[in-house]
Amino acid sequence: MTARTLSEIGEFGLIARLAKGIHLQKNIIKGIGDDAAVLPFTKEKHLLFTTDLLCAGVHFSAKENGRLVGRKALACSLSDIAAMGGVATSAVVSIGLPKTCRLRYVEDIYRGMNGLAKEFCVSIVGGDTIQSPCLIVNVALLGEVERSHLVLRSGAKAGDKIFVTGPLGRSFPTKKHLSFTPRLSEARKLVQSFKPSAMIDISDGLAADLGHILQESEKSAILDVTSIPLSKDATLDNALFDGEDFELLFTTSAGVAKKLFGQNALKVFCIGEIVRGPRKLFLRDNRGYLKALKPKGYTHF
Amino acid sequence: MTARTLSEIGEFGLIARLAKGIHLQKNIIKGIGDDAAVLPFTKEKHLLFTTDLLCAGVHFSAKENGRLVGRKALACSLSDIAAMGGVATSAVVSIGLPKTCRLRYVEDIYRGMNGLAKEFCVSIVGGDTIQSPCLIVNVALLGEVERSHLVLRSGAKAGDKIFVTGPLGRSFPTKKHLSFTPRLSEARKLVQSFKPSAMIDISDGLAADLGHILQESEKSAILDVTSIPLSKDATLDNALFDGEDFELLFTTSAGVAKKLFGQNALKVFCIGEIVRGPRKLFLRDNRGYLKALKPKGYTHF
Repeated sequence: MTARTLSEIGEFGLIARLAKGIHLQKNIIKGIGDDAAVLPFTKEKHLLFTTDLLCAGVHFSAKENGRLVGRKALACSLSDIAAMGGVATSAVVSIGLPKTCRLRYVEDIYRGMNGLAKEFCVSIVGGDTIQSPCLIVNVALLGEVERSHLVLRSGAKAGDKIFVTGPLGRSFPTKKHLSFTPRLSEARKLVQSFKPSAMIDISDGLAADLGHILQESEKSAILDVTSIPLSKDATLDNALFDGEDFELLFTTSAGVAKKLFGQNALKVFCIGEIVRGPRKLFLRDNRGYLKALKPKGYTHF
Repeated sequence: MTARTLSEIGEFGLIARLAKGIHLQKNIIKGIGDDAAVLPFTKEKHLLFTTDLLCAGVHFSAKENGRLVGRKALACSLSDIAAMGGVATSAVVSIGLPKTCRLRYVEDIYRGMNGLAKEFCVSIVGGDTIQSPCLIVNVALLGEVERSHLVLRSGAKAGDKIFVTGPLGRSFPTKKHLSFTPRLSEARKLVQSFKPSAMIDISDGLAADLGHILQESEKSAILDVTSIPLSKDATLDNALFDGEDFELLFTTSAGVAKKLFGQNALKVFCIGEIVRGPRKLFLRDNRGYLKALKPKGYTHF
């Protein structure tokens, strides 16, 4: 039977289905299917291009502080540029506002966004402001990355170690999802000194986002249960499935991994390894037993 | 008294207020305040960057054909790139879908968008798909333009003639707003052969969009009532205030205007002239009498 509803096909089924027929010129380096698109730019650099849509009641409470809403809208896109190993440059911002929205609230959204833009030297260069039934913020962001420093989801090799940049789980109840620092400076240190083979930011949850790396790299992975760093009061399930942690998840060769262990400049946690085979995910408990895991996580449908 | 609500300050008051405090790196050629942002790119070219947010019930009926919705979402952004004299290259698409949305409807949105993307050699390189209370489509679009061909809103000079590329008014009832062809090929002919001094696309209405050129160029204008081309069944008021015509409105020197009159490659209508003085708009009737006109038009608040 053909799927008819969005919940039958799911968010990632939908994206895969839509991506199939989509128009792409030949010069595009990477289109749909990574944290940001990769486009031709200069001799030394690629251009990065990403978009994130946030909606009240889905990504933040309709009563949430405006500054935090604006901050998060830009931070999500910054996190995408970080996941490619890049530096963010310019953003355009679309805002849909309910008729009853107070001017001060809109100004707060911009203030929150602008504060983070300053912090990361990003210019807000344009936008679109409309009336809409619910509060919506879309940030489209450009970045750039040296050709030699670009990291895709597709580069993980068997034998690579898997790392995350911070503890995971309970990002919503702790409000980390509103106040997290996008890992741009960590990403730059990584690509400059530690050559990650694959990278993604954790927005849908560790299991789902590692699943994306496995999908694109055509590999499997083993996660060591006891090595996964948990946020305060978070369970293993929270870490695996909650999403919106916005930490970086990356892989490196075993050789580079050793260098990462012996340094203090960058706080990272080794949580497992890449193995051969097609897109399977296993948990290894403290006795060494393996258990298969579905790469589920947050999905919109 | 300080404005407290969006309707007190209005859409353009809001944009001006938000733009004031916004963060901008020094290398940005043009930020907020034109049809697209202008960013440094190569030795010969600038990069163009624009975003358009469309929402069901505002920009299209919630029951509208999906293909036309997708087509319009991309067409609006293409029109922005045309207004800068540029060529469109890559788009990222954010879609917010109500839970009850049928899969076929979403696919239709993409089909409509994709058809137009092919026609204008634009790559759809990424996106974001979320659940939201109402149907939302945001297209962020990149383009490029030779440095010598860039046209801003700010270049109109006293004595310049004012042109539009097609008849105006009643775009909503006639559904032109869903099916219009963005004037990219006309824009390229114009910048290559006729050096417009200022250009904008008519989205808010002739009076409001000419108002934007006058604002940025610090000039005034006289429109000849009898020369304004009207769409079928449209009144002068429809042409002046309806909006969503997506024709190009541009100015050229009187010398270039003569060349435009004597050619057939490009259908344009001369509708008035730029005069000295600060941001005033006049209508001239068939007896030569002048009447001041407020540059009002469609506004979201």
